[in-house]
Amino acid sequence: MSDVKKVVLAYSGGLDTSVIVKWLQETYNCEVVTFTADIGQGEEVEPARAKAQALGVKEIYIEDLREEFVRDYVFPMFRANTIYEGEYLLGTSIARPLIAKRLIEIANETGADAISHGATGKGNDQVRFELGGYALKPGVKVIAPWRLWDLTSREKLMAYCEEHKIPVDFSNKKKKSPYSMDANLLHISYEGGILEDPWAEAEEDMWRWSVSPEAAPEQPTYIELTFENGDIVAIDGEALKPHEVLEKLNKVGGDNGIGRLDIVENRYVGMKSRGCYETPGGTIMLRAHRAIESLTLDREEAHLKDQLMPKYAEVIYNGYWWSPERRMLQAAIDETQKNVAGVVRMKLYKGNATVVGRKSEQSLFDESIATFEDDAGAYDQKDAEGFIKLNALRLRIAAGKGRKQS
Amino acid sequence: MSDVKKVVLAYSGGLDTSVIVKWLQETYNCEVVTFTADIGQGEEVEPARAKAQALGVKEIYIEDLREEFVRDYVFPMFRANTIYEGEYLLGTSIARPLIAKRLIEIANETGADAISHGATGKGNDQVRFELGGYALKPGVKVIAPWRLWDLTSREKLMAYCEEHKIPVDFSNKKKKSPYSMDANLLHISYEGGILEDPWAEAEEDMWRWSVSPEAAPEQPTYIELTFENGDIVAIDGEALKPHEVLEKLNKVGGDNGIGRLDIVENRYVGMKSRGCYETPGGTIMLRAHRAIESLTLDREEAHLKDQLMPKYAEVIYNGYWWSPERRMLQAAIDETQKNVAGVVRMKLYKGNATVVGRKSEQSLFDESIATFEDDAGAYDQKDAEGFIKLNALRLRIAAGKGRKQS
Amino acid sequence: MSDVKKVVLAYSGGLDTSVIVKWLQETYNCEVVTFTADIGQGEEVEPARAKAQALGVKEIYIEDLREEFVRDYVFPMFRANTIYEGEYLLGTSIARPLIAKRLIEIANETGADAISHGATGKGNDQVRFELGGYALKPGVKVIAPWRLWDLTSREKLMAYCEEHKIPVDFSNKKKKSPYSMDANLLHISYEGGILEDPWAEAEEDMWRWSVSPEAAPEQPTYIELTFENGDIVAIDGEALKPHEVLEKLNKVGGDNGIGRLDIVENRYVGMKSRGCYETPGGTIMLRAHRAIESLTLDREEAHLKDQLMPKYAEVIYNGYWWSPERRMLQAAIDETQKNVAGVVRMKLYKGNATVVGRKSEQSLFDESIATFEDDAGAYDQKDAEGFIKLNALRLRIAAGKGRKQS
Amino acid sequence: MSDVKKVVLAYSGGLDTSVIVKWLQETYNCEVVTFTADIGQGEEVEPARAKAQALGVKEIYIEDLREEFVRDYVFPMFRANTIYEGEYLLGTSIARPLIAKRLIEIANETGADAISHGATGKGNDQVRFELGGYALKPGVKVIAPWRLWDLTSREKLMAYCEEHKIPVDFSNKKKKSPYSMDANLLHISYEGGILEDPWAEAEEDMWRWSVSPEAAPEQPTYIELTFENGDIVAIDGEALKPHEVLEKLNKVGGDNGIGRLDIVENRYVGMKSRGCYETPGGTIMLRAHRAIESLTLDREEAHLKDQLMPKYAEVIYNGYWWSPERRMLQAAIDETQKNVAGVVRMKLYKGNATVVGRKSEQSLFDESIATFEDDAGAYDQKDAEGFIKLNALRLRIAAGKGRKQS
Repeated sequence: MSDVKKVVLAYSGGLDTSVIVKWLQETYNCEVVTFTADIGQGEEVEPARAKAQALGVKEIYIEDLREEFVRDYVFPMFRANTIYEGEYLLGTSIARPLIAKRLIEIANETGADAISHGATGKGNDQVRFELGGYALKPGVKVIAPWRLWDLTSREKLMAYCEEHKIPVDFSNKKKKSPYSMDANLLHISYEGGILEDPWAEAEEDMWRWSVSPEAAPEQPTYIELTFENGDIVAIDGEALKPHEVLEKLNKVGGDNGIGRLDIVENRYVGMKSRGCYETPGGTIMLRAHRAIESLTLDREEAHLKDQLMPKYAEVIYNGYWWSPERRMLQAAIDETQKNVAGVVRMKLYKGNATVVGRKSEQSLFDESIATFEDDAGAYDQKDAEGFIKLNALRLRIAAGKGRKQS
Repeated sequence: MSDVKKVVLAYSGGLDTSVIVKWLQETYNCEVVTFTADIGQGEEVEPARAKAQALGVKEIYIEDLREEFVRDYVFPMFRANTIYEGEYLLGTSIARPLIAKRLIEIANETGADAISHGATGKGNDQVRFELGGYALKPGVKVIAPWRLWDLTSREKLMAYCEEHKIPVDFSNKKKKSPYSMDANLLHISYEGGILEDPWAEAEEDMWRWSVSPEAAPEQPTYIELTFENGDIVAIDGEALKPHEVLEKLNKVGGDNGIGRLDIVENRYVGMKSRGCYETPGGTIMLRAHRAIESLTLDREEAHLKDQLMPKYAEVIYNGYWWSPERRMLQAAIDETQKNVAGVVRMKLYKGNATVVGRKSEQSLFDESIATFEDDAGAYDQKDAEGFIKLNALRLRIAAGKGRKQS
Repeated sequence: MSDVKKVVLAYSGGLDTSVIVKWLQETYNCEVVTFTADIGQGEEVEPARAKAQALGVKEIYIEDLREEFVRDYVFPMFRANTIYEGEYLLGTSIARPLIAKRLIEIANETGADAISHGATGKGNDQVRFELGGYALKPGVKVIAPWRLWDLTSREKLMAYCEEHKIPVDFSNKKKKSPYSMDANLLHISYEGGILEDPWAEAEEDMWRWSVSPEAAPEQPTYIELTFENGDIVAIDGEALKPHEVLEKLNKVGGDNGIGRLDIVENRYVGMKSRGCYETPGGTIMLRAHRAIESLTLDREEAHLKDQLMPKYAEVIYNGYWWSPERRMLQAAIDETQKNVAGVVRMKLYKGNATVVGRKSEQSLFDESIATFEDDAGAYDQKDAEGFIKLNALRLRIAAGKGRKQS
Repeated sequence: MSDVKKVVLAYSGGLDTSVIVKWLQETYNCEVVTFTADIGQGEEVEPARAKAQALGVKEIYIEDLREEFVRDYVFPMFRANTIYEGEYLLGTSIARPLIAKRLIEIANETGADAISHGATGKGNDQVRFELGGYALKPGVKVIAPWRLWDLTSREKLMAYCEEHKIPVDFSNKKKKSPYSMDANLLHISYEGGILEDPWAEAEEDMWRWSVSPEAAPEQPTYIELTFENGDIVAIDGEALKPHEVLEKLNKVGGDNGIGRLDIVENRYVGMKSRGCYETPGGTIMLRAHRAIESLTLDREEAHLKDQLMPKYAEVIYNGYWWSPERRMLQAAIDETQKNVAGVVRMKLYKGNATVVGRKSEQSLFDESIATFEDDAGAYDQKDAEGFIKLNALRLRIAAGKGRKQS
C-alpha cells in the first residue's frame, strides 16, 4: 500500500462507503475527508454528516450541486442530442465528472494527497472518477477499495461492520432492492439481480421513478417548453433554473409513464451488461431539443452534429469529460446553439412523449417556399433540373463508361 | 422540348399521372408506356390497366414488387438502424430506387428513350427518381412534367381533364384528403394542408394506418421476432417472407397505436418541410434490430456503425441508392450482420414498442463476467488499474505540464 | 434577362473581364462597378484603374487584401492541416470567399443589386463566388456571363473586342500561356492545354513560381518557423505579418524547388479535371504545422482533427466557406490551437521540405517517460498488462464464443 | 508466475530474445518453441536455428513469410491510403498481426499454452502482439518478460548472459547502433539515442536503407506501376509478386533518397515518442495508389475513404488488425477497389517521388466533358445555375431571416 496522508472519499452515507471510511483509516492510517453531494438522487444528504462524524471524520463536505450539475453537465450534453448506442441517455456517466472535479478541489483545499470512491473494478464509474481525477490533478493517488480489499461478498462486508461497530441499519432502505442502483437528477439505474439474464423481463416493482404506461392517467398532459441557446429556460411560460426544469420534467414525465429503458450496453472495460433506466425528464428534453433544432438549425450543421454525436457520447460514456477531445466537440456543438430558441409543444400520454408543435422567431422554416400552393415565384422549380443533372454527372459518366451498379 | 420517341411513366392510376399520360402524348407526340407497381401502398393496382388502356396506352406494366421491395431495399437499410435527422425512418426514400430501376429496365425492354414521373420540382422524389435513372442508363431523357407545364393549379388540371375527356371520378378517393400522401409497405406520409404550419397539431382523422394510443387496446401485446443475418425471418416462431414480416408488423403495430411521427425535416433541395408519418412495422423493427445487435455485435463495430449511419441515411434520403458510396457503406454494414441472429421479445402497448428480452446463440453477453456476484476469476479487477492509468497517461502528462481543463 | 440596375464585377483587368464589363453595360443597360484586389497574384492591380475608366466605369475599387487574405482565410484553413483528396492545398478555393465577401460589401456600399464574375459554367469557382454571394446577401442577382452569352470561343471574343473597341493588347501577357491559370499568395494553378491528357507530363516551362528540383541549389537551406496559436508569426526569429510569412516562404520554397503538384481532382460540379499547382510556402507551412502539433496537441484531439479534416476540406473546396458547417468545424479546430506554439526547424533541399527538429514550451513530449533508459518510475510497465487485457476483453469473449477472425 | 507448460516465443536470434529463451526456461520450467520469420528485415533468419538449438530449444520454426506479409497485410492497408497522424506509413504496426497469427497457429500445432515476445512495456508492439494473440486464442497465456523481469539495464542483461553462458557476440551487429531499430519489407525504424530530443536532427549515418537526397543520382529515374484491384502487379511492364514489388520499389526508392521520415507520434499507451523511418517503396506506392484512384474512383467513394482512413490507421496502429472493426472497414475499402486499375508513371529524383502521368481503361476522367475547348454539348453550362441556386437555398433562407455570417 502506498503512503497516503489524507484521502477525500466520495461518500454516500450508505453502508459500502461507510465501510470504506473505516477501511481507509485502518489500512493507510490516514485521515479521511468525506464529500457528499446532492445531485438529485432523491435522498437526504444531511444525515451523512452524523454518520461521518460517528466514523471519526473531521472534515465533512456536504453540498447541494443540483444547479451546477444540470447547468454545466446535463444541459451541454443535451445540446448534442447525446445518446449512447442508440438508446442510453448517459444518466450515470454525466454525473461522474462533477464528482471527480469536487473531489480534486476538496483535496486541494484540505491538503489531501489521495481520492477514493466506492465503484467496483468491473464497471465504468471507476474509470470516470479516476480519469477525471488524473486529468485535474495528475499526481493524485487514487484508492479504489473494491479493486484492493478482500471484502468481496456481502457476508464479509457484514462481518467487517460487526467487527468495527459500523451500524448496519443505516443502509436499510437501499437493502430492500435486489438491484444495484444509482440515481441523480437525470436518471435512476438498475443493474444486477434477475437483470443479469437479458431474456428476463424486468419486474414491475423494480421501477421507482415512473408509473407504468398502464397505470398512467387516461388523459394526456400537454406542456410547452421554451428554449434559449439550446437549453430549456421555461416550462409552460414559467422561467425556471436548470435543475428546476429537470425536476419538473421528471415529475410530469414519471407521472405519465415516460422514460423507462431496458438495454444491453457495452462497457468501456470490455464486457456487455444489462441495465434498466428511468429518465423521464431527459426523454422529454431530448425529443423537444431535436424538435426545436429541426426548425432552427441549418441542414448541414444538423447533419454534422448527428455525425459527431456518437463520438461525443462515447467520450462521455468512457469517462473523458475532462479531456481536450470533449472540449473540442463541445466547441463545435455550442457554436450551433446560438439560434436554437423557441417553443416546443408536447403531448405526454402513457409512455409517449410526442412533439405536436414547434415555433421560433429564429425559424428557418419558410412557409412561402415549402408550400404546396402557389409560391409566387419564391422557388423556381426549373432550378431543380440543373441541380439534379449536375449531381448526377459523376454517376452518368461512370455508367457511360460501363461501370456496373451492383 | 427535346425529341422523344417513347417514354416509360411511373403511373399510379390516379388523376395526376393520368393527366401526365395525355400531356406526354400530346406534347411529345410519343408513345407512353405505363408502369404501376404494388409496393404495399394499400390500393389495388390492377384497375390501373383499364385506365391506361382508356388513355390509349398499349404497353402496360403492372407488377407486384412487395417481396423485392422489402428484401432488397427495406431490410438492407434497417441493418444500419437507419434514421434521418434523428427521427425519420425513410419510408418514402427507400421506395424510389426500386421504381427507378424498373422504369429503366422497362425502358430497355420496350426500346423507350425517356422516363417520366409525377413528382414536383420542390421535393426529394424527383431527385431520387432521376438520380436512379441517370445512374442506371446515363443517356436516358427525363421528363418531369411538374417542372415543365403550366398546369400549376388544381383548377387548370381540371380544365385540362375536361378538355381531354379524362374521367375525373377515378381520383375521388384520394381527393377526400387535404394532404399530399404517399404510401408503401414501410409507411404512409402526409404533407401540406394545415401541416404547413409547424405549430399546428395534426388532426386525429388524418392518420390512416394506426389507431391513436388512446384508442389502442388496454392490454399489451407481446411478440417475439427472430433474426438471421440481421433480418427478421419469423414472428412468434412462424417463418415469413420479408414482405409478410412487414405486413404483419404493420398490422400489430398499427393496432397498438405505434409508429406515428410528426417532424420538420430538411429536404435535399434546400428547404425545410413538415411531414407526418405512420411507420408501425418499421418502428418495431428498428428497436428490435438494435436489441438483437446489442447482444451480438462487438462494441467497436457497433460504434462504427453508429458513426456511419447518419451518412448512410443522408445518402438514401438524397436519392443516391444507386451510387458507389451506398454500396461501399452497405459492404461495411453487411459485413457486421453475419452473427446478428436470435430472438427479441417486445411488448406493444398504446404507442410504446418496448424491448423486454433478447437472446441469441451468437450472444457476446457473458454472464460469468458481467455478474455482480462472484465471477470465479473470469475477470481480474486489478487489470482495471493499469487500464485506467495508461488511458489517463496523456491527460496526466498534459495536466502535469500545466494544461488547463477549461 | 432580368432587370439589373448596377452590378459589381470581380475585375482582373484582363481581356475576359474587360469584355464582361462591356457586355454587362450593353446587355443590361446598367452601371458596372469594378473590383480588383491584390491577393498576391503577382501582377500589378493599379493598371486595372485606367482600363476600367477606358470602359466607362465610374466606381472603381482597387484594394490590397493580402494581409486579410492570409490572416482570415489561409491561416485558419492551415490550422486544420487541410488537404483536398490527399494532395491539393486548396489554393484557389480559399481565395474565393474573400472576393465574394468584398463583392457583396461593395454592392451594399454602392447600392448595386447584382454581382458578376468571369468564371465558367464548368468549374468550381462559379459555385464558390455565388454561394458566398447568396449567403451574404440572399436577394442579390448573380450574372455569370460565361453561362449566358454566345462568346464561346476565343475567335468570337476577339470579334467582340474589335466591334466594341476593347484594346486587346492588354491581355498579351496572359496570352503567352496555353494554360488557364490562377494565382494568389497561396498558389498558382494551371489547367487545360496538354494537361487535358492525364498521361502527359507537364512541360518544364509551364511552371512559374518554382525552379525544378534539378535546378535548385546544391546546398540545403535551413529555416526556423515560430508558431503561436497555430499560426506562423516569425521566420528565423523575425516577426512577420501573415502575408509576409507566406511571401517569404514562397520565395525560399520556390528557390528550392518545393511545392509542385500534378493531380486529377474531382470537381463539385461532377467531373474530374487535371490540374497542376505550385504552392511553395503552403507546402512548407503544412508540414511545419503538423510538426508543431505533433509536439503540442493531445493525441485524441489530433486524431479527431484528422477525422474532421476531409469534411472541412470538402466544405471549402465546394464553396461553403460562408456556411454554418464551416463555422462549426472552425470552432472545433480553433479550440485546439491555443497551445500550438513553438519552433519548427526545416531543411529545404531540391523539392524536399523536411522537418528536422521541433521544440515548444507547450510540449507534451515527456522525455522522462518516453526514454529507453531508466525512467525512475515515471511509467510503470506493469500497468500495460491491465491495459492490454481489458482492451482485449471484448475480443477474448468473442473468440471464446467461437467468433471467427476472417 | 502462472503455470506454463510450453511457450512459443517470437525469436529474432538476437541477444534480447536469446536471453528470453533462457529466462522462460528457468522461470517457468517450461519448454520454449522459437519462431523466426523472414518478413524482409534484411537479415538472414537461418542462423537463428543454431542459436536456438544451443539454447536447448527442440521445436524451432523458421519461415519465409515475405509474400504473405505483403499480399495479405501491406497491400490491403495501402488500398486505404493509410497514414497515421498525417505522416507515418505504419511499417511496424502492419507486421505485428502476422507474427501474432503465426505465434498462435504454432501454439496450436505444438500444444503450447503460452506465447511470449521481446517488446517492452512502454511501446505499441506489446499491445499489437497481445491483442492479436487474445483475439485468435482467447485462453492463451501471454508472457512479456520486459514487464516482468528485473533485467532492466544493459548491464544486468550482460551479467545474466555471462551467468547463463549465452554467447553475447551474436548480437554484435545490432549493437553497433545506438538506436532501437525494427525492420521489415515495408520499413526500417529508429528510436532512442539522440532522437529522444525532438529538437536534435538525426545524424546522416543513422539511415540504412536510403541514400540522402544529396547523395542520390543527378538524373531522375522514371518508373511505370501497373495496378489491378488496387494493388501493384507489375513494374515497368514486368509482372511481380507482391513482395517482389516492394523489394524492387525499396531498391529504386532508396537509391533515389526517397522515404525518410522524422516524426513525433502518439503511442497507444499514452506517451509521445520520436521516431525516424525509412519507407522507400511504401512512399512511392502510396503516392501511386492515390494517383490511380484519382482517375478510377468516384468522387464520393473517394471522399468517404478519406474520412474513414484516419480511423482505419488508428485501428491498425493500436493493434486491432484482428478485430471486427478492421474487417468492417476493410470490407468498405475493398468494395471500392474493383476498378482501381491502370498505370501510373512516376519520376524519382533526390527524395522526390512525383506522379507525372496516369492512365486507365477504367478511367472516369472524361476529356470531352472536362475540356476548356468546345465540348459539343456534352455538358450544359446552364445546368450550373440551378445547381448553385438550390445548393444555396438553405443559405439564402437563413440570410433572408437575418442569420449572421460570423
